[in-house]
Amino acid sequence: MAFLGIPDEEFIRGKVPMTKQEIRVLTMVKAQISKDDIVWDIGAGTGSLSIEAARIAENGHVYSIERNPEGIELIKRNMEKFGVTNLTTIEAEAPEGMDSMPDCDAAIIGGSGRHLEPILDKIDAHLKTGGRIVLNCITIQTLSSCLEYMRKHKDRFTYEAMQVQVNRLEAVGPYDMAKAINPIYIVTCKKFK
Amino acid sequence: MAFLGIPDEEFIRGKVPMTKQEIRVLTMVKAQISKDDIVWDIGAGTGSLSIEAARIAENGHVYSIERNPEGIELIKRNMEKFGVTNLTTIEAEAPEGMDSMPDCDAAIIGGSGRHLEPILDKIDAHLKTGGRIVLNCITIQTLSSCLEYMRKHKDRFTYEAMQVQVNRLEAVGPYDMAKAINPIYIVTCKKFK
Amino acid sequence: MAFLGIPDEEFIRGKVPMTKQEIRVLTMVKAQISKDDIVWDIGAGTGSLSIEAARIAENGHVYSIERNPEGIELIKRNMEKFGVTNLTTIEAEAPEGMDSMPDCDAAIIGGSGRHLEPILDKIDAHLKTGGRIVLNCITIQTLSSCLEYMRKHKDRFTYEAMQVQVNRLEAVGPYDMAKAINPIYIVTCKKFK
Amino acid sequence: MAFLGIPDEEFIRGKVPMTKQEIRVLTMVKAQISKDDIVWDIGAGTGSLSIEAARIAENGHVYSIERNPEGIELIKRNMEKFGVTNLTTIEAEAPEGMDSMPDCDAAIIGGSGRHLEPILDKIDAHLKTGGRIVLNCITIQTLSSCLEYMRKHKDRFTYEAMQVQVNRLEAVGPYDMAKAINPIYIVTCKKFK
Repeated sequence: MAFLGIPDEEFIRGKVPMTKQEIRVLTMVKAQISKDDIVWDIGAGTGSLSIEAARIAENGHVYSIERNPEGIELIKRNMEKFGVTNLTTIEAEAPEGMDSMPDCDAAIIGGSGRHLEPILDKIDAHLKTGGRIVLNCITIQTLSSCLEYMRKHKDRFTYEAMQVQVNRLEAVGPYDMAKAINPIYIVTCKKFK
Repeated sequence: MAFLGIPDEEFIRGKVPMTKQEIRVLTMVKAQISKDDIVWDIGAGTGSLSIEAARIAENGHVYSIERNPEGIELIKRNMEKFGVTNLTTIEAEAPEGMDSMPDCDAAIIGGSGRHLEPILDKIDAHLKTGGRIVLNCITIQTLSSCLEYMRKHKDRFTYEAMQVQVNRLEAVGPYDMAKAINPIYIVTCKKFK
Repeated sequence: MAFLGIPDEEFIRGKVPMTKQEIRVLTMVKAQISKDDIVWDIGAGTGSLSIEAARIAENGHVYSIERNPEGIELIKRNMEKFGVTNLTTIEAEAPEGMDSMPDCDAAIIGGSGRHLEPILDKIDAHLKTGGRIVLNCITIQTLSSCLEYMRKHKDRFTYEAMQVQVNRLEAVGPYDMAKAINPIYIVTCKKFK
Repeated sequence: MAFLGIPDEEFIRGKVPMTKQEIRVLTMVKAQISKDDIVWDIGAGTGSLSIEAARIAENGHVYSIERNPEGIELIKRNMEKFGVTNLTTIEAEAPEGMDSMPDCDAAIIGGSGRHLEPILDKIDAHLKTGGRIVLNCITIQTLSSCLEYMRKHKDRFTYEAMQVQVNRLEAVGPYDMAKAINPIYIVTCKKFK
């Protein structure tokens, strides 16, 4: 199997929404995950981001927080399917449960419920200098709150943000027609001190 | 350094246009490059795709064809900068020069001049079964020709295509405003027999 | 009622796909329809483009070709609903039926079946100097064929083309999240002699 | 000249940024401007939105607020060029100057400086029931503030919002390549009581 970019259809998934491959891959790259990293995945869903992260951080460890028991179950089944062992699941609604995890090199936020600010506070308290936070968001309010937080903490964070939109071409008879996928914002934050 | 996704500004580049990081990363993933792969990079430009591929195919080898001597020079300087040794440059205008390379597991086409069809023919002749072709294109004509080629050769190729558009948010005083980057089409072709 | 831009939900529609308001409006503008114009609408579908055109060309006339009898019926019901009388429907698969219509100032192509080239030939034969053709297309092949046609006939046509993508924000609890609509290409051709 | 959609190049413009034709047209349509309307244009810039509005509201009147004297001058020159007389310019930084204008049927906000909330308050005080506010915005913060305002005043406002992205195809030799234009958000608000 390739080093990164597990196809969407290979993940075991229920009705839990899943980050698409293209966004998953960009998230890994923006989080600059490397072999020995400790990675937090907040609002892990089916664990697709966690699994990719764990395969890259082969000598490190991934901690996945998810409030939905169905999600936790899916993460465990995906761990088994992909032979991932360096991953610990925590069934909790973040920011609860976040103090039990060791300090991290990178934190991924796929879902923040309505608690983005306290979640960012907790990550800030446990993120090593030089560490990265990558937020995937689909709502204007979450994006806006994250930008506001980073602007307020510019004494120790820099950020870059982008919107990614993918249109897949679908073959219909002799034609290829564009099928839009909902766009997503990716905010990458670096803690420089 | 992280496993993938060298930031754009780290590459040595002249006036030669360069594939952006996000597209480079998606290209690597769609080409499913792995450790032992032989990779062709057609129209290599500054070599940014070649360098990323060579770092992943650490036990394999990358062959980069580029007609522009300035490009060849940049590729060599980037090889040195990133400590890449498993890469051979070939100064030629593809499809010329393509018969001199060993059969490949993956072929990347960043630039095809006006020779897409003969280039695809040459790749087809040298691509192993199970191999991948990934075409990055910015023109409707190149996209259309590639789709037509793949439809004509559906006895041995499948393809998927997508358009990717990235808008970067730029901080201007207290505001973040979207700055569009030109969209690109990525066509991924698999040779199944 | 406003001069242009009937909301989508006001049209009577069956299962026939309908051009969205934003694209409909841009199509009218690109076709530069004015009060006295004769307008052809090829592949008229539910007639949403035809109805808008007829309301603008109040002293002119719109001719709508549609092969689907259900479409013809919908156009007639929409004419009645919006009080449009300067519109004639023609049940035929274009380019058939196109010779029966008087010469036009503007031609809109919403659907071309697989007959784009002969349809463009017919329009060319009947379009006045200074006239406009506006093609809405969702497939790469139709776009590509139209561009090729216009390049081949650059002795009498100029063109501009653009892709339009709309993401609607949907309110979900306290959040607004982007919902992508499939992008569309709009090609505007002007006959200058 | 057509009823709507003056080409960008026909406006007299200095260094003042101008709303692109496609966005201008969608703004007019979303504002549902009709013949007898009183329209406010806040942050009118070169007046391109004001001019289009004035041509539609032929029996109505447009009031254009702009703080930049160069902008005011451009609006006046464009009025002359397009033969528009039903337009009054007000040199002021909104919300200042807004109490001097008669109540309106539609208000367009192209630029709000950093005063969006007080501007919306003023509009609210003077907008007739059934009236529309259309905000064009390019920053996440302005979008977010507008959404928050409308959510706070949902007792009398409904809103819909969308992001529009246009890629123009540019002919380069035998190719057509996409050139991205920065995306824009359009928020349409209706005062229902």
